Amino acid sequence: MSSTDLVCLTVAQAARLVKGKKLSPVELTQAVLERAQALNPKVNAYITITGEGAMAQARAAEREIAQGTYRGPLHGVPLAFKDLFDTAGVRTTGGSKILAQRVPDADSTAVAKLKAAGSVLLGKLNMHEFAFGISSTNPHYGPVRNPWDLKRIPGGSSGGSGAATVAHMCVASLGSDTGGSIRIPAALCGMVGLKPTYGRVSRFGALPLSWSLDHVGPMTKTVEDAAILLRAIAGHDPADPGSLQAPVPDYTRGLKAGVKGVRVGVLSNPYFDFMAPAVRQAFEAAVGTLGELGANVQPVPWPEGELAGLANMTIILGEAAAYHAGWLRTRPQDYGADVRDRLIQGSVLPASLYLQAQRARRTIMESALALFGGVELLVLPTIPVAAPNIGESTVELGGRRVDARAAITRYTQPFNLTGLPALSLPCGFSPEGLPIGLQVVGRPLGEAAVLRLGHAYEQATPWHKRQPPL
Amino acid sequence: MSSTDLVCLTVAQAARLVKGKKLSPVELTQAVLERAQALNPKVNAYITITGEGAMAQARAAEREIAQGTYRGPLHGVPLAFKDLFDTAGVRTTGGSKILAQRVPDADSTAVAKLKAAGSVLLGKLNMHEFAFGISSTNPHYGPVRNPWDLKRIPGGSSGGSGAATVAHMCVASLGSDTGGSIRIPAALCGMVGLKPTYGRVSRFGALPLSWSLDHVGPMTKTVEDAAILLRAIAGHDPADPGSLQAPVPDYTRGLKAGVKGVRVGVLSNPYFDFMAPAVRQAFEAAVGTLGELGANVQPVPWPEGELAGLANMTIILGEAAAYHAGWLRTRPQDYGADVRDRLIQGSVLPASLYLQAQRARRTIMESALALFGGVELLVLPTIPVAAPNIGESTVELGGRRVDARAAITRYTQPFNLTGLPALSLPCGFSPEGLPIGLQVVGRPLGEAAVLRLGHAYEQATPWHKRQPPL
Repeated sequence: MSSTDLVCLTVAQAARLVKGKKLSPVELTQAVLERAQALNPKVNAYITITGEGAMAQARAAEREIAQGTYRGPLHGVPLAFKDLFDTAGVRTTGGSKILAQRVPDADSTAVAKLKAAGSVLLGKLNMHEFAFGISSTNPHYGPVRNPWDLKRIPGGSSGGSGAATVAHMCVASLGSDTGGSIRIPAALCGMVGLKPTYGRVSRFGALPLSWSLDHVGPMTKTVEDAAILLRAIAGHDPADPGSLQAPVPDYTRGLKAGVKGVRVGVLSNPYFDFMAPAVRQAFEAAVGTLGELGANVQPVPWPEGELAGLANMTIILGEAAAYHAGWLRTRPQDYGADVRDRLIQGSVLPASLYLQAQRARRTIMESALALFGGVELLVLPTIPVAAPNIGESTVELGGRRVDARAAITRYTQPFNLTGLPALSLPCGFSPEGLPIGLQVVGRPLGEAAVLRLGHAYEQATPWHKRQPPL
Repeated sequence: MSSTDLVCLTVAQAARLVKGKKLSPVELTQAVLERAQALNPKVNAYITITGEGAMAQARAAEREIAQGTYRGPLHGVPLAFKDLFDTAGVRTTGGSKILAQRVPDADSTAVAKLKAAGSVLLGKLNMHEFAFGISSTNPHYGPVRNPWDLKRIPGGSSGGSGAATVAHMCVASLGSDTGGSIRIPAALCGMVGLKPTYGRVSRFGALPLSWSLDHVGPMTKTVEDAAILLRAIAGHDPADPGSLQAPVPDYTRGLKAGVKGVRVGVLSNPYFDFMAPAVRQAFEAAVGTLGELGANVQPVPWPEGELAGLANMTIILGEAAAYHAGWLRTRPQDYGADVRDRLIQGSVLPASLYLQAQRARRTIMESALALFGGVELLVLPTIPVAAPNIGESTVELGGRRVDARAAITRYTQPFNLTGLPALSLPCGFSPEGLPIGLQVVGRPLGEAAVLRLGHAYEQATPWHKRQPPL
């Protein structure tokens, strides 16, 4: 196998080869590590590449497998993590100057679970500072660049996770999502990102942005890989007070069952029908494909969903300001201007508005659950536009320039507020060759159904096969 | 039985007589009603007396009992409710001008449960406007007056409940407690008030002040009566999201078991040792009595408890401002000045401070639970001073004038923040003849132990027998 063939492997493909002893974890790790090192000066997806540690872990995995202990599909597979997941002995900056020298003693729960599954830690991925933004234009570690067009943003806040995965600088990665931070880079980079149900994956040891909205999830090349990673990281953790008790299914089982007869809703109120022409074209084609695959697609209105973004942003502002209050007082100069401005904005947010947003949340949640009485899944665009240029604060939408952050989070934030599982996967390209994302949303703990539709759509379309021009 | 004898009956005494058909609910209700009507011009404990309705209910109860159906110790007993509990067909003002004409369609859960237990609704009790204060000096319905000295406050916000019960204008009553609003009037009026564990009693249909701190509980002449009422109102209610699932014991069973060998803590840090000389004398004598009764009294420090009051007040300010935001905008002139001022203060409270208070809450809660590893109960004064005069905003404490509201809630607020059950019962009188309260605090859902100690202390002391000079 050539080095290029090696780095392009998905988790599932690598796993089959490793299990059959046709692929050496050391060779695989070496190839991906070399690619990460070679491309990082261009893409800037990594803050820290743990080359020596990765090779040592790969050798240990290889030894263990040779001795007959196979831990499962992640054994010997090199992964990388958004740099807000604590990694024992490896610095964890949160993309910040304030924590630039921080080396945790212990792994976050998600990292510990993936290590226990035998995976290899390749490094820590660049991100929007403190996860509080969607561009990943990091003032301390430099901007992450979109592999499809290096002058554009990869999205954020898990921008390094999206860029590194689609550029084959790791086999798969983890991100976190408070307003869209997994799904946005997944959409803008043309890969797969899953924000599971709130509480499905422990956040323990992951730097918080807004604890009542933070989610941890996989960012992968394929839907099958997302299912493999989710199974490994999901489950109850008493160390995370928001963690759910529900048992964890094998998400790869039944993944290929298709969508015949599945009732799929398309949000029909005009608020959810606001998107750039290329996004509309891709989305309508995707809905057509789902119909051809046998899904029963039907329009459903969700008026309450129009308030979800505002409520979500209000909660993030308040909780982030509470978490950062100490540093904002003592080290204001150590924040990037955009994050500092928003933290100051959050600092003067009245408690009564925060509480009104939390109260609205309950009503919006009830309306969302009612919606899911009639359909099993929802599909909508992940983002109404393709990736803007680095440094651009507005995008063209509906015939005028609108705030980029508001436009880009318009369709992702509602599913943080409601905590529903939401997947983004590629559904086409803009005329400039930029990826477009399809979002699939499910019932609480309905990840299996979400992944099933995602997989059926992915296998029926060519989008995940296209490679960025690097 | 004379009319004076009749009105002085406790719930338990009345119940024994009614059950034995030696007392007519109609006679009892008539006597208490007449006393309420006669004294209300002086005490101003009622906003609404439902004379005709009460007599009709008493006649119905009497008929039912005559026909052989005895519902239990509340059957035919006339009760009154703080005017924030919804009562079907009877106006429920919350002590406000804004809701002066509001007539609910349905009963609050606590009222419905007491009606189902056969009790008679005598009327709705005056209170601090919207429960947001401790004086019950109501600007719309006039000040509630302390039956022991009519120029003094009865405490609040459930001031009418305290005054009416000790003045025998009802047999027992309900109050609500967010920072001390049951225990403060219980202490200042010389009667019994129990704030149960957070979630033990449904708040559904009770006007909220601060939903994460609001508690509903009984206000009675004796500890036994508190046990009877608690049993009737406790239990899960799906309509209250904070409601607990735990089963409800018969709190009157084992009430007389005494306190021999029970480990009782006295908070030993100086913060909890700040009180007027008369309160100190009464409290120290009470601790001595508990020792004589066989309790194992020991000092315990609770440093984290010193922050509990501030955190509690911060949460109340934020949540009250969120609840009142609409009326504060549209009807500011319809609030009393003190409540309006505090709502405005709450309106500009930063969300980050509110959230820091909620985060501190968890730490303080953990420290409180650790404290209860070593002791089963805590005792402390309910309030460090006796009742101030109406209109007085400061009290003498530690050799200087201090803010009355801060002083009066100093020892009650920590048990709203922690949600622990807390009872106040009489433990002496000041040289001016004003009642002093002893507070007994238990573990989560430890109401039975709290009531047991309260009953043992009460039966060993004469304080509950003294009558106000009306």
